[in-house]
Amino acid sequence: MITFFNQLHARHQGKFEMFRGELVPCFEVPARVDHVLAELEKRRLGLVVVPEAFDGSVLLGVHSQRYLDFLASAWDEWVGLDVANAERDALPSVWPVRTLRSEVLPSNFAARMGLFSMDAGSPLTSGTWEAARAGADCALSAAVAVAGGERAAFALTRPPGHHAGADFFGGYCFLNNAALAAQQLRTQGFERVAILDLDYHHGNGTQAIFYERADVYFTSIHGDPQTEYPFYLGYADELGAGAGRDFNRNWPLPRGTGFDVWRATLQQALSDIAKFGAQALVVSLGMDTFVGDPIAGFTLQTQDYLQVGEDLAKAGLPTVFVFEGGYAVADVVFSNPGMSLKAEEVENF
Amino acid sequence: MITFFNQLHARHQGKFEMFRGELVPCFEVPARVDHVLAELEKRRLGLVVVPEAFDGSVLLGVHSQRYLDFLASAWDEWVGLDVANAERDALPSVWPVRTLRSEVLPSNFAARMGLFSMDAGSPLTSGTWEAARAGADCALSAAVAVAGGERAAFALTRPPGHHAGADFFGGYCFLNNAALAAQQLRTQGFERVAILDLDYHHGNGTQAIFYERADVYFTSIHGDPQTEYPFYLGYADELGAGAGRDFNRNWPLPRGTGFDVWRATLQQALSDIAKFGAQALVVSLGMDTFVGDPIAGFTLQTQDYLQVGEDLAKAGLPTVFVFEGGYAVADVVFSNPGMSLKAEEVENF
Repeated sequence: MITFFNQLHARHQGKFEMFRGELVPCFEVPARVDHVLAELEKRRLGLVVVPEAFDGSVLLGVHSQRYLDFLASAWDEWVGLDVANAERDALPSVWPVRTLRSEVLPSNFAARMGLFSMDAGSPLTSGTWEAARAGADCALSAAVAVAGGERAAFALTRPPGHHAGADFFGGYCFLNNAALAAQQLRTQGFERVAILDLDYHHGNGTQAIFYERADVYFTSIHGDPQTEYPFYLGYADELGAGAGRDFNRNWPLPRGTGFDVWRATLQQALSDIAKFGAQALVVSLGMDTFVGDPIAGFTLQTQDYLQVGEDLAKAGLPTVFVFEGGYAVADVVFSNPGMSLKAEEVENF
Repeated sequence: MITFFNQLHARHQGKFEMFRGELVPCFEVPARVDHVLAELEKRRLGLVVVPEAFDGSVLLGVHSQRYLDFLASAWDEWVGLDVANAERDALPSVWPVRTLRSEVLPSNFAARMGLFSMDAGSPLTSGTWEAARAGADCALSAAVAVAGGERAAFALTRPPGHHAGADFFGGYCFLNNAALAAQQLRTQGFERVAILDLDYHHGNGTQAIFYERADVYFTSIHGDPQTEYPFYLGYADELGAGAGRDFNRNWPLPRGTGFDVWRATLQQALSDIAKFGAQALVVSLGMDTFVGDPIAGFTLQTQDYLQVGEDLAKAGLPTVFVFEGGYAVADVVFSNPGMSLKAEEVENF
């Protein structure tokens, strides 16, 4: 399996996020992927390559122009307001919830920060845009590789992507890497693409981007949004809309769910993907289903991930893996000598 | 003029709010109304009385049951999560913006904080509910007094109210006092009620509450939301909807607007209110149009408020004044020996 990795990810390093009414140090840190990369290299799990740089216009397949324009200029604007801002991240503080308008673009910077976000937990830093663009390049390159005949490719990216909507950031996500990979697979000729989101948190952005489309099937296994982020999407009654009706399927599971139930759900989801007739698969791979994750609540063990790899391999589909969450940095499954999600099983796709 | 005042306002005292990416001390402090009260008493501007306590069901004329239930229990829930929370305010950190669902009520407390709010600048404290209820009692009592024959009554309240929607808080506001007063006037027989919002910030909550109604006319003079909070509402093209079409009128003015332009706009707004055939008036009285306000940008001087009082008096309508913003606490116009908005002119309504 080929892995796409770009060191520019480290340019995005938030200091603080709002969490339960307080500013706390960020959970989403560069060390997350460094651990994974080290393990990939140690295990010789295939080539690790720097992605090609895609033209920004490719992002328009998923994101709005006004949102991309904002992300590209936001840091300079923030520092332009006050040079002291160079030392602090930008966080939004006001949001256009119901009855407020989202189509008007205010000139005020704080207003646009809020317009283009869904939470106060995703700091925008000096390197956010550069890192997010590099991450998107990884996802797009992985899709191109799979379209070119690779059985599987891995986009080892951060910041993650699956909470980012067509025109908002949130949940540590800025560009929706999985959605970009799926769209790229569509562009390159796969007529039916499935996205399987295995992160502990529902991929609200990915779902919303494809909610009215029949050509991209989205399914997710995640912590019940009644109790888990992102709270406002990811329920079982969300089945798609318009042309996309019946092409969206959520599997919310209670906090504390163990591997037996989780795996049975995975098999159901894979069965649905087969029925859909998927020609290619994008997996939003969150490692926060691991038992020790500090902000998630499933209890998968190291050895369970081996089984997951086997189940995914049996689907027999060309697959792009996109790294999403996973915050037990030191214990993240790849760095654990006893496990291997993408060891031989995935290699043998 | 009779003034309704409840000392329980001081039970709401936030510590910090999110402002431009940082937690900063709250602008909206109890001393704001203490200054006004001291001046009212010094000038013997009429009776200052404690309002009667209204049954909670009256609030349902404006707010949703689920929102009121949340506000009533929120502090106990917050402290129940962690006893250490008793020492810190609750602030939301995630919001159901577009594509996310607002009709589902998550069980997670942080999720409900976000569901029922529009910003991270309005801390919920141990006394917020008690203070907001007492403030609503002031507004309702002022409406009852006017319905009973008083020419004018003043609800000297905080927290303010005009940013609060039917089921969200924000902009330091929890219960919409002006909307409650207007609804109470309707209930007590005034068939056409006008709300004139003179706060520097657009009264988005009040507008939204009456946006589809023809019996309550809403008009506001405020800083242009392109640059000023609340950013996502208050534009000139918002004219009402459905039955309320043409019963909403906004007058956004550029930051820095002086009294001449502001007063000409006021006279236009009062003319429109007369054309509407208003039988009673509610004035959302923000003092943040004052030249020295730290978070607003108009340049009204002390003597200008005297003129405003005369203009309002000429409208000849039974009037409920509801105190909203105004953050130049020590200089707030009432405490300035050279001014008097509600001196004899308003007394002589």
